[in-house]
Amino acid sequence: MTFKASVLTLYPEMFPGGLGVSLAGRALEAGTWSLEAVQIRNFAEDRHHTVDDTPAGGGAGMVMRADVLAKAIDHTSPAGDPRPKLLMSPRGKPLTQARVRELAVGPGAVIVCGRFEGVDQRLIEARGLEEVSIGDFILSGGEPAALVLLDAVVRLLPGVMGNAVSGEEESFENGLLEHPHYTRPQEFEGRPIPDVLVSGNHKKIAAWRRVESEKLTKERRPDLLATHPLAK
Amino acid sequence: MTFKASVLTLYPEMFPGGLGVSLAGRALEAGTWSLEAVQIRNFAEDRHHTVDDTPAGGGAGMVMRADVLAKAIDHTSPAGDPRPKLLMSPRGKPLTQARVRELAVGPGAVIVCGRFEGVDQRLIEARGLEEVSIGDFILSGGEPAALVLLDAVVRLLPGVMGNAVSGEEESFENGLLEHPHYTRPQEFEGRPIPDVLVSGNHKKIAAWRRVESEKLTKERRPDLLATHPLAK
Repeated sequence: MTFKASVLTLYPEMFPGGLGVSLAGRALEAGTWSLEAVQIRNFAEDRHHTVDDTPAGGGAGMVMRADVLAKAIDHTSPAGDPRPKLLMSPRGKPLTQARVRELAVGPGAVIVCGRFEGVDQRLIEARGLEEVSIGDFILSGGEPAALVLLDAVVRLLPGVMGNAVSGEEESFENGLLEHPHYTRPQEFEGRPIPDVLVSGNHKKIAAWRRVESEKLTKERRPDLLATHPLAK
Repeated sequence: MTFKASVLTLYPEMFPGGLGVSLAGRALEAGTWSLEAVQIRNFAEDRHHTVDDTPAGGGAGMVMRADVLAKAIDHTSPAGDPRPKLLMSPRGKPLTQARVRELAVGPGAVIVCGRFEGVDQRLIEARGLEEVSIGDFILSGGEPAALVLLDAVVRLLPGVMGNAVSGEEESFENGLLEHPHYTRPQEFEGRPIPDVLVSGNHKKIAAWRRVESEKLTKERRPDLLATHPLAK
């Protein structure tokens, strides 16, 4: 089954961007997933293809019009389309690896990229958009966030990653940050690889990695330890 | 002063990507910021330009070699370079708008994009890399995260955003999620713009927006209310 991504944007030329390269790019060519970038401006009906207007109540910036976006969404995702409709927005629920996994086993996603100050609230409600945030910072628009979300999803699609095991041991998959990694050379600028890792004792290695993971998580992300059931 | 970004990557063709378009692209052309994408592979010394090796202690995936990356970093950022050296990594400290602001008033950034399972820990320590995470999800590599970080920084550079006020009222700048936005048409699919916003009473409008911001933040991000001093 092909994962179908449709991105609604004022900058369709930003797609596939980095997703046309490397493993994601090969999977795109192979048809493991598909990507359609829809120009929102094509759905504006006035002569100037206006997609935004000044905010009701005043204030800085411009707001994307509900009517234009509604037309773009309805055209891209007609009634019966089973795909979730997302809006990339700093007001959204923070994206998690669990949500990424859910999306990756689904039929695809319709992703609306906001620009300017934001999107008319009535459109969000009327079309049931799920607001998704990738972090507590402000971007120029939803496009870089959409590329991040798709990158996270595509790498989980069947056949995309060379080694399926690889994903399982990574940060967040067990509620902890990942332990430190080492590889050859045995010594780098006077720093050796920790003895335990070259001991050949797999039980000791696993224990060391677990301890390092917990130490790092406690140091940098006590919030993860507090909330993740597997991290206890 | 030009903000100088250097990105160390195995996929230099991913840059400037979306940052070559729109406001960021115009600012890049105008010399408000500069972007150099450095191919890490060019610093590998063997015939096959090997940049990674199997993890010490066993396990899935590959680890980026400390020696190759060190050469790439030292070449790109010689002693005396005042720019911070960042490593995009899910193990890092979560990126915040405050850190974005700090970076935007600085001389630039050297950004290392990890791939595979990770980067040799000794390189991170020896070169004092600041590990930065854009969220609790796993990407194919650091590149999409680097594009996000640069997008967030570049929009804050002097002269990039059309309306300088615009940034001030947005999500996270005051520790709250942003209030809902509305614009014309006055009625959309039977949904009117809330009365208060068309009342012309600026004091009432400001109060309504503050209440909506607080409501939304309480609903979606109680963690922000708990930690941000301005949100109280």
